[in-house]
Amino acid sequence: MAAAPVWSVDPRTGKQREQVAVEATAQEVDAAVRAAHAARGALADRTVRAAFLRSAADQLEGAKDHLVEAADAETALGPVRLTGELARTCYQLRAFADIVDEGEFLGVVINHPDDTATPPIPDLRRYKVPLGVVAVYSASNFPFAFSVPGGDTASALAAGCPVVVKAHPDHPGLSELVASVLRRAAAQHDIPDGVLGLVHGFDAGVELVRHPLVTAAGFTGSVRGGRALFDAAAARPAPIPFHGELGSLNPVVITEAAAAERAEAIGTGLAGSMTLGVGQFCVKPGLVLAPAGASGDRLVKSLTDAVSDTDAGVLLDHRMRDNFVAGVAERAELPDVDAPVTPGAGSEHTVSPGFLTVPAERLASEGEYDLLLEECFGPVTVVARYEDEAEANAVLARLPGNLTATVHLSTEETAGEGRGAEILAELTPLAGRVLVNAWPTGVAVAPSQHHGGPYPATTSTSTSVGGTAIERWLRPVAYQNTPEALLPVELRDDNPLGLPRRYDGRLER
Amino acid sequence: MAAAPVWSVDPRTGKQREQVAVEATAQEVDAAVRAAHAARGALADRTVRAAFLRSAADQLEGAKDHLVEAADAETALGPVRLTGELARTCYQLRAFADIVDEGEFLGVVINHPDDTATPPIPDLRRYKVPLGVVAVYSASNFPFAFSVPGGDTASALAAGCPVVVKAHPDHPGLSELVASVLRRAAAQHDIPDGVLGLVHGFDAGVELVRHPLVTAAGFTGSVRGGRALFDAAAARPAPIPFHGELGSLNPVVITEAAAAERAEAIGTGLAGSMTLGVGQFCVKPGLVLAPAGASGDRLVKSLTDAVSDTDAGVLLDHRMRDNFVAGVAERAELPDVDAPVTPGAGSEHTVSPGFLTVPAERLASEGEYDLLLEECFGPVTVVARYEDEAEANAVLARLPGNLTATVHLSTEETAGEGRGAEILAELTPLAGRVLVNAWPTGVAVAPSQHHGGPYPATTSTSTSVGGTAIERWLRPVAYQNTPEALLPVELRDDNPLGLPRRYDGRLER
Repeated sequence: MAAAPVWSVDPRTGKQREQVAVEATAQEVDAAVRAAHAARGALADRTVRAAFLRSAADQLEGAKDHLVEAADAETALGPVRLTGELARTCYQLRAFADIVDEGEFLGVVINHPDDTATPPIPDLRRYKVPLGVVAVYSASNFPFAFSVPGGDTASALAAGCPVVVKAHPDHPGLSELVASVLRRAAAQHDIPDGVLGLVHGFDAGVELVRHPLVTAAGFTGSVRGGRALFDAAAARPAPIPFHGELGSLNPVVITEAAAAERAEAIGTGLAGSMTLGVGQFCVKPGLVLAPAGASGDRLVKSLTDAVSDTDAGVLLDHRMRDNFVAGVAERAELPDVDAPVTPGAGSEHTVSPGFLTVPAERLASEGEYDLLLEECFGPVTVVARYEDEAEANAVLARLPGNLTATVHLSTEETAGEGRGAEILAELTPLAGRVLVNAWPTGVAVAPSQHHGGPYPATTSTSTSVGGTAIERWLRPVAYQNTPEALLPVELRDDNPLGLPRRYDGRLER
Repeated sequence: MAAAPVWSVDPRTGKQREQVAVEATAQEVDAAVRAAHAARGALADRTVRAAFLRSAADQLEGAKDHLVEAADAETALGPVRLTGELARTCYQLRAFADIVDEGEFLGVVINHPDDTATPPIPDLRRYKVPLGVVAVYSASNFPFAFSVPGGDTASALAAGCPVVVKAHPDHPGLSELVASVLRRAAAQHDIPDGVLGLVHGFDAGVELVRHPLVTAAGFTGSVRGGRALFDAAAARPAPIPFHGELGSLNPVVITEAAAAERAEAIGTGLAGSMTLGVGQFCVKPGLVLAPAGASGDRLVKSLTDAVSDTDAGVLLDHRMRDNFVAGVAERAELPDVDAPVTPGAGSEHTVSPGFLTVPAERLASEGEYDLLLEECFGPVTVVARYEDEAEANAVLARLPGNLTATVHLSTEETAGEGRGAEILAELTPLAGRVLVNAWPTGVAVAPSQHHGGPYPATTSTSTSVGGTAIERWLRPVAYQNTPEALLPVELRDDNPLGLPRRYDGRLER
């Protein structure tokens, strides 16, 4: 039986461009995982892996023009956005190199014997070690930052874990290109190619999460695909952590006072956020609670004007376009749902942005309107008009977990007068990131970032962006009564590496 | 239909003493979870919950005599051990109070806007919030330290999470008593009773992990029971973290040089560790790799003498006794397995300690001897005699995950000569705690502790003992662009609570 071909497809035409790979067989998946497993020793030295991450950033920057061109050909995201995404990706690789150098992520804790404790404490020293081979499932919508060289890969390598990436079928050619660039960087530090495996194909992805030598997985994609892989990870003879980002509605609350104060600015800002990147961001605001009445009407008018002025765009693939067109049509058909700007098909290969409005009351209890509480990928949002706070709260109470939750407050509310604090307390259980007077699109790479949230936003309590993303790929080990001569250098009393640590209870930095 | 009665049983006779409760119906589980959920606000203030934890320790100490008597009646563990376990439990509650006060577990990270980052960083502040109601599944073998007032409960309350405990059927009467003591402590701080729910019954335990308002679970017990609950947690519409400790063989390696140097001391030490508490510790050494030849013979002789001198003992219940008697008989029947001291039934209600020997070679490949690589709860261990290092390593390579792995080295090896470091590197992937020249029984409550390990030792990368156990019940939230007036006090620039934090990249302590 011939190997199934993997084609690079032009989303601007829907046409196959060229065959760039073949789908991996079970044997090929096994070989990739074994090669990765064999490469883990080459990542053991933190100095080496920090240098490798920096070389990877350098090499990606060196190949920038070629990579952006290849990415645009497969995703239609455009050179400006893709250049920015590649810069972000390189920044992220270097940020993780800094994190490796600092070593706080090792979580060093040292206790000397203490007979006053109950029971007595022996000499006990703990730090974190890499889990082993990590499976990374690429996203469609970020061909760099959440794909082969993205946050999952960067944080896993930083933790000392080799990676096998399941390429996204929307950009298989780019995935191959990037993998070769990363392997070139690895070679500069005598790290074998196997440190970064790459496989194509749906079945290969399932094989990967089931492989006995795979110790953890990172995923960015849909609820359907992510849940299937999560279930497979949990059903293994030895289950593994599965850190999946599956979907998010990203609710936004506009208070009556905020709308009264600046309806036009909010409407324009919302239009920009929901149509950014043709609405293909996981943090796109998908549900907006706006007041009924005159101020809310001004907001809708402003949103109408701004969205009407936004061009049609090309989605990442034609299946997504079909889903978008069908999804918005199904939603628009619900009684009492209006479409001030109708979203849907644009030209043969594009989609037009738009938005829907609905009385918030319709969303306050279970029923056919639940469809409006499901993420719809693409340039559409739902504006639910509420009569009073109780109605808005009733909708919030029905929401599943989210990556973000946002509130727009008036100047006075922002200063602490009125219900601002109360609304923040209501939004916090819903999401991993809470924003005030801002838009959720744009996810900074920072130590304080949290890109994750209650299910289905993520399948764990972890983040896939920011410094703490490295924690996903480590496990602690404690050494008891172990003589200095045999201790890992990180755990020695004299701390030759200058690591931040907890030493007999005291935090040392 | 009458509610199923829950009986307190005397393990020294196997006889029912009295009915102490009834099994919870689904409605009663729901009520307990809802009451816990409603109590979470009362734990929001860290000062209050630290005080509550200290009051709980005080109240438990105040009721010590009564509690120890009740515990002994249901477990036969004896007043000395139980008094020590209660002291450990109180120490643990106070240790978590100190952790709550210090606040490092909140993981505060603050970034001010930085336009030099790619992409620019907004004002972004992250800390951790409690997950919500935690389900705790009590262990049979630690009626205090891993049950109603144990590490799971203490760490969950410390995190700000109310708890619903599934009582272990081996000590239902004690569980009720302890729950009432903890509620008395809660009342001192105006925390409602619901903060500590208690349910009995197998079905109630399954209902509990499936309840939509339960956000995480902690479990200590068998692979069979723990895996079933893990699977139920993973199969929920919204899966939750399940931190289960399921089973561990706790391998011990004795080097040839160590045996040559002090075979007798090692044999005696091993006898003490494997028979401690009638072999009912999760960290009991269950497999010992000892050299073939004269030194190893001396070790076996010493072990024989010491185990022969150890009294028969009462196990926690008669089902365990039946399993032990059947389990050791099945193992002893394997060809080439000897029993220098035969483990098995003692008197009508006790079991006799013993141990088995087998050529290590038999364990080096898959087959009927795999039974010897499964945990057998009770006072038995398996001594596998190896001819050379390769044989010992072949056995180690076949082991599942463990809580602990131990090596006994000679004085020279301990000083760094010979294979000590190499053996440590081999043991590290196998376990969460690695010991040198010590025995795994005895688990200190310390910041550096790690009581967990690769599956099936635990179902996650977390620990159930020590300061970091609190991490299991938290999730991070980041606040973006949130004005000072609305920020949680923990995230304010002026740091009025003096929390350790990462502030614009710098670690502040």
